[in-house]
Amino acid sequence: MTTQRVTVLGAGGWGTALALCAHRTGCQVTLWARRPEAAQELQQQRENRAYLPGVALPASLKVTSDLAGSLQADLLLVVLPSLGVPEMLTLLPPDRPLVLCAKGLAPGGEPLSELAARTHSHLAVLSGPNLAGEIAQGLPAATVVASRDPHLAQAAQQALMSASLRIYTSSDVLGVELGGVLKNVIALAAGMVDGLQLGDNAKAALLTRGLAEMRRYLSANGAQEATLYGLSGLGDLIATASSPQSRNRAAGEALAQGRPLPGKVVEGLRTAALLDQWAQQTGQPMPIAHAVTQVAQGTWSPHEGLRWLMERGAKSELE
Amino acid sequence: MTTQRVTVLGAGGWGTALALCAHRTGCQVTLWARRPEAAQELQQQRENRAYLPGVALPASLKVTSDLAGSLQADLLLVVLPSLGVPEMLTLLPPDRPLVLCAKGLAPGGEPLSELAARTHSHLAVLSGPNLAGEIAQGLPAATVVASRDPHLAQAAQQALMSASLRIYTSSDVLGVELGGVLKNVIALAAGMVDGLQLGDNAKAALLTRGLAEMRRYLSANGAQEATLYGLSGLGDLIATASSPQSRNRAAGEALAQGRPLPGKVVEGLRTAALLDQWAQQTGQPMPIAHAVTQVAQGTWSPHEGLRWLMERGAKSELE
Repeated sequence: MTTQRVTVLGAGGWGTALALCAHRTGCQVTLWARRPEAAQELQQQRENRAYLPGVALPASLKVTSDLAGSLQADLLLVVLPSLGVPEMLTLLPPDRPLVLCAKGLAPGGEPLSELAARTHSHLAVLSGPNLAGEIAQGLPAATVVASRDPHLAQAAQQALMSASLRIYTSSDVLGVELGGVLKNVIALAAGMVDGLQLGDNAKAALLTRGLAEMRRYLSANGAQEATLYGLSGLGDLIATASSPQSRNRAAGEALAQGRPLPGKVVEGLRTAALLDQWAQQTGQPMPIAHAVTQVAQGTWSPHEGLRWLMERGAKSELE
Repeated sequence: MTTQRVTVLGAGGWGTALALCAHRTGCQVTLWARRPEAAQELQQQRENRAYLPGVALPASLKVTSDLAGSLQADLLLVVLPSLGVPEMLTLLPPDRPLVLCAKGLAPGGEPLSELAARTHSHLAVLSGPNLAGEIAQGLPAATVVASRDPHLAQAAQQALMSASLRIYTSSDVLGVELGGVLKNVIALAAGMVDGLQLGDNAKAALLTRGLAEMRRYLSANGAQEATLYGLSGLGDLIATASSPQSRNRAAGEALAQGRPLPGKVVEGLRTAALLDQWAQQTGQPMPIAHAVTQVAQGTWSPHEGLRWLMERGAKSELE
């Protein structure tokens, strides 16, 4: 077993945590940050103070903003906000093995793995219930790597799996990717329930309907149903909707309470709007995505959005 | 629509909350408590201080310990701990409509609806994500009433459904009942994860495996798979495993931290032992029930139990 060279593209919380995971398994790791000042700060402070305060970056973990020099790796992990992925793909060698870790859709609503497949031949996606802060601290967690190429899935497993992070492999690329994308929308709505202090009963009912809404979209797009009920679907939904650390859940809470949204990227808001469009085009009901979009646009109050969801829910389940 | 007479048998937190629900819809409600002193206290204090402190019982809600006088009702809700249900059934008229609300198995491991079906002809079960405290306060929630007799399910729906509590009907009696029973075992294990402070990622992974464990038992016993993914399965699992108010989750937390268990009935501990027996008899794997039982008996430490679950999990999902 030769040492793998792993480059993580993107030095946010999740990118930094994944770099630490690969470092733990003995890989030679480069963490690439877009902005030179960010790279320099991480190099000097040996800590990602903005996203993972208190977690030390080992000295042998290289941080750089030099992209060309970072691409000589056995495995490239793309851990950027989803809007930044299309441009990054144009800069990456077509035959280099890529692991896509973003949890959002391409600007037009296409899954990133499908967009990437048009230009790149070795692709995997990584998704699961993975709050970055816990993983950086070495708390136990599990995730899924999916690829049509079992060798690539195994290489990613080998590069990242440790006593604290279990990696499962799958061949359902789309199912694993879409679970991580769609759950952000449901987590936003769950955050609204939290923000209005409607309680754990209401939140559990919402998450149950949320999983059914996720199933409709996944099935229509050719994902496997079993994937939805696994770690990358249900597991990620539960973690994101329960954790105080989750950005999308927190954004829903802020929306409900009329507070400003956090400055960091909120993938779920953009995804909700794209899913709402898709629902209008296809006639498939996506009520939670619709309600979140209406509330985010200020058309409905959070109370109106949740009341509409509940009344609508009753009707359709009684049929 | 004539006013229904509803008697709730059992004045714990859930019985009292359901009595309040029936009172809200305009039913004529009797709440029966086993102990005369308990009934007298509730009558005088107009509050269930032990289980629902701060929630007022309206003056027209009758409280009594006279069983014979309570049975002249259109609907009897049986809301006792599961161990008390078999004896109660021998005291109830065979032709009176019963709604079973306990979330546990009969002493020998049989579902209570099957035990009851041997002596009673009009049966329904009620189960869902229903933390009693929230429902008593009038926070929004939803639940499921299942019966092979649609008229009985509708009568229960009519007696309990209000703006704050939505009642869905189902014909899958066993599926609805077993969701509420099995989720207590998974919630105990989730409480252990909380007690050891393993984080939201680990808890989400456990709940995902927990739902798969529930599915194995439900399928083997003839329940419908769709029921598992609805309010009475997944919904109840999420509410029970997340809420600080949940007795079973709290018991798991106490076990993990070596604190004494709460004095109140912990249905999940008894259910775990029964499921573990069933697993040994049938050869079906029920690892979470096994681990909870071993930890409850003191054979394993909580750490040993959870480590065993995680290692085992990895093996079976990779196959």
